[in-house]
Amino acid sequence: MKERTLAAAVAEHNGSEVKVAGWVHRVRELGGVSFVLLRDRSGLVQIVFRGKTDLHVESVVTVRGTVSENDKAPGGYEIHAGATEVIAAVDADLPIPVNQNTSSLGIDALLDNRILSLRNPAIRSIFEVQATIVEAFAGYLRRQEFTEIKSSKLIGTGTEGGTGLFAVDYFGERVYLAQSPQFYKQTMVASGLERVFEIGAAYRAEKHDTTRHLNEYVSLDVEMGFIDGYEDLMDLEVEILAHVFDLVRERHGATLDQFESTVPTTDEIRSSPRIDHDEAKSIASERVGKKLFEINPEAERALCNWAQESAGVPAVFVTGYPRKKRPFYTFPDGQKTRSFDLLFRGLEITTGGQRIHDHTMLLETLPRFGLKAEDLTDYVSIFKYGCPPHGGFAIGLERLTQQILGLANVKEASLFPRDRKRVRP
Amino acid sequence: MKERTLAAAVAEHNGSEVKVAGWVHRVRELGGVSFVLLRDRSGLVQIVFRGKTDLHVESVVTVRGTVSENDKAPGGYEIHAGATEVIAAVDADLPIPVNQNTSSLGIDALLDNRILSLRNPAIRSIFEVQATIVEAFAGYLRRQEFTEIKSSKLIGTGTEGGTGLFAVDYFGERVYLAQSPQFYKQTMVASGLERVFEIGAAYRAEKHDTTRHLNEYVSLDVEMGFIDGYEDLMDLEVEILAHVFDLVRERHGATLDQFESTVPTTDEIRSSPRIDHDEAKSIASERVGKKLFEINPEAERALCNWAQESAGVPAVFVTGYPRKKRPFYTFPDGQKTRSFDLLFRGLEITTGGQRIHDHTMLLETLPRFGLKAEDLTDYVSIFKYGCPPHGGFAIGLERLTQQILGLANVKEASLFPRDRKRVRP
Repeated sequence: MKERTLAAAVAEHNGSEVKVAGWVHRVRELGGVSFVLLRDRSGLVQIVFRGKTDLHVESVVTVRGTVSENDKAPGGYEIHAGATEVIAAVDADLPIPVNQNTSSLGIDALLDNRILSLRNPAIRSIFEVQATIVEAFAGYLRRQEFTEIKSSKLIGTGTEGGTGLFAVDYFGERVYLAQSPQFYKQTMVASGLERVFEIGAAYRAEKHDTTRHLNEYVSLDVEMGFIDGYEDLMDLEVEILAHVFDLVRERHGATLDQFESTVPTTDEIRSSPRIDHDEAKSIASERVGKKLFEINPEAERALCNWAQESAGVPAVFVTGYPRKKRPFYTFPDGQKTRSFDLLFRGLEITTGGQRIHDHTMLLETLPRFGLKAEDLTDYVSIFKYGCPPHGGFAIGLERLTQQILGLANVKEASLFPRDRKRVRP
Repeated sequence: MKERTLAAAVAEHNGSEVKVAGWVHRVRELGGVSFVLLRDRSGLVQIVFRGKTDLHVESVVTVRGTVSENDKAPGGYEIHAGATEVIAAVDADLPIPVNQNTSSLGIDALLDNRILSLRNPAIRSIFEVQATIVEAFAGYLRRQEFTEIKSSKLIGTGTEGGTGLFAVDYFGERVYLAQSPQFYKQTMVASGLERVFEIGAAYRAEKHDTTRHLNEYVSLDVEMGFIDGYEDLMDLEVEILAHVFDLVRERHGATLDQFESTVPTTDEIRSSPRIDHDEAKSIASERVGKKLFEINPEAERALCNWAQESAGVPAVFVTGYPRKKRPFYTFPDGQKTRSFDLLFRGLEITTGGQRIHDHTMLLETLPRFGLKAEDLTDYVSIFKYGCPPHGGFAIGLERLTQQILGLANVKEASLFPRDRKRVRP
């Protein structure tokens, strides 16, 4: 739109005429004048009309008018309206308000009316933060010479066994939606790209309906060859997160304030403890006052509290998971594995580890997991034809967004979440 | 890997000892010495062993040795081998060669042996170029204040009618894989983000088996609010492409040379003609010597040749498609539409246009396409509650990659292509 001034730039035009365009966010009449808050992608600006206005909230308008200072207006400036044009008139009442705090609305109301709830500035800002997370993740990895890949989400068989997969009718053949790009990441390490990342959808056909599960989510996947050990992977993840946190802090300070959240500093996230799975169970058991046999959600919260107290950061790597708790491709270490989870603010946001790269070791391992090399010929051939030591991890984008902003439910961090009951909008 | 020097950096260490790591690309014995080409993510380096070596191609090795100049070696330097360690031994013969020109192999051999064909440096470089395209696309749009979104790929109904959709068994309910993020892009424009882009998978259950179709592809989607007309969209696409071409030229000159291709300059792509659909049919008909009733593949090639001759660039926007050839949401202009395709080097790589943003116009339009507002309540409510003039387009990532490098088949530009018969690897 030609000659348009964004709300956030109005202050630069004090005394001049500008043309603004956006949605009618709020209308208030007071003493013979009407104050209209106009909302655009940059923020809000107050527009003053003489007398009454028949503008309805959420209508899209353009307004020409003169900018003047007003300490009481948002941002310190307002526009005295001249020519006003309604581009898209709204005469319907809204099923949920856009211009009010949504905390009194339940998650179902927000998701049933997703078309409108996404207009709420606080809710919209969640996805502005999310876009920054994606940008920071990709940007950091590119600077470390990682190559972005795009792998297929339609697979013949599951990577981690056949459970939890959504079936797709592919020209009459039954195929599945990929749970992860695991095999493809490994293929691309072995292709010679060595260092790859992928930002893509992942699917889990699990009937959970919790505040931490989605049936479709965005997986931030990393895989790196020529590692010396799985510590390299944790080091890499720490640096990625430090960069993500920095960029979120730099750009989204007001959003962090609004959500009453902060992000760890680089020093803080670098000081995240790394503790063995047994030690983690022991610490968690002690803190919750009962013996825990696995790192369940209660243990995740206890461990992050412990990390906050002992290391000053609510993040902890749990390492050395038992072999039977990890997928077959995890590099073994006796009965344990060279694997890790990262817990952040009480929630697992990453699973990762070193993978088996030795062809003979892989062939010996498959039967232990009830798998046959004949059923995994493409995968096995990655290693038959030479693959360096490697490993990787995946960060759940929605969970990371949730934990950065302190959202109660991971569904709040998905534009159009899919759960057991929801496939719309 | 500590102390590792990449092949491309060996020249900086002339006279010193380095440690390199990678795949054995080629082994050649000559006059009592063995020349091994080592391949890593940065390129190739020659290593000289005294006597014979039992290294097998594709084995992964580390080699310590001293760098010395040799005009005949690739890059002008070679390494005289000292301590050598085989990290992953390969003793199998390869079903297809990695270190030879693959032009004699058919597409099926390359895809059946995808794990290996992706190791071929020329094939791998296709995906290095593709990663740059993605980076350039996203980078340019971010600088124009576009926000990246991630929308669901599981939808209740198709956006463009129910044909051509893959069905998914979603907890016993029949849902579909999205053909495009169309409705979601529009939702996010109307959310107030105004300018959005998405890089994601799109699915077409079409039984084509041609050199230009994939059943799963990566769609580079853009949607922009507050446009003055659909010309704004073509202007935007031109600038995106100019930026993509610049970055590809800057980083991948050797790959362009290898594929005997070049990319248009900014001036060239900006000079792409924009011609009406009727005029396009007429020009194409004249050039192919028979009357064409639609812009078919033959016409696409003829029009790009015409654009090359008349404007010096093999790219042309065809505008004003008839209403019946475009989806219901396309903004009408009499019996035509405010829509466009971009043809590049003989292939349609983009479809775009202005969308209907007026609620009343949308309600009047739906029945003309056999659709009911009741079946599209979420979509219709975008406009019921106020949406600015907007439009967008989608670029097929694999097609753009194909056309930049001059690949014969779009499947060559997909890491793990899915077609009528192929869902592996």
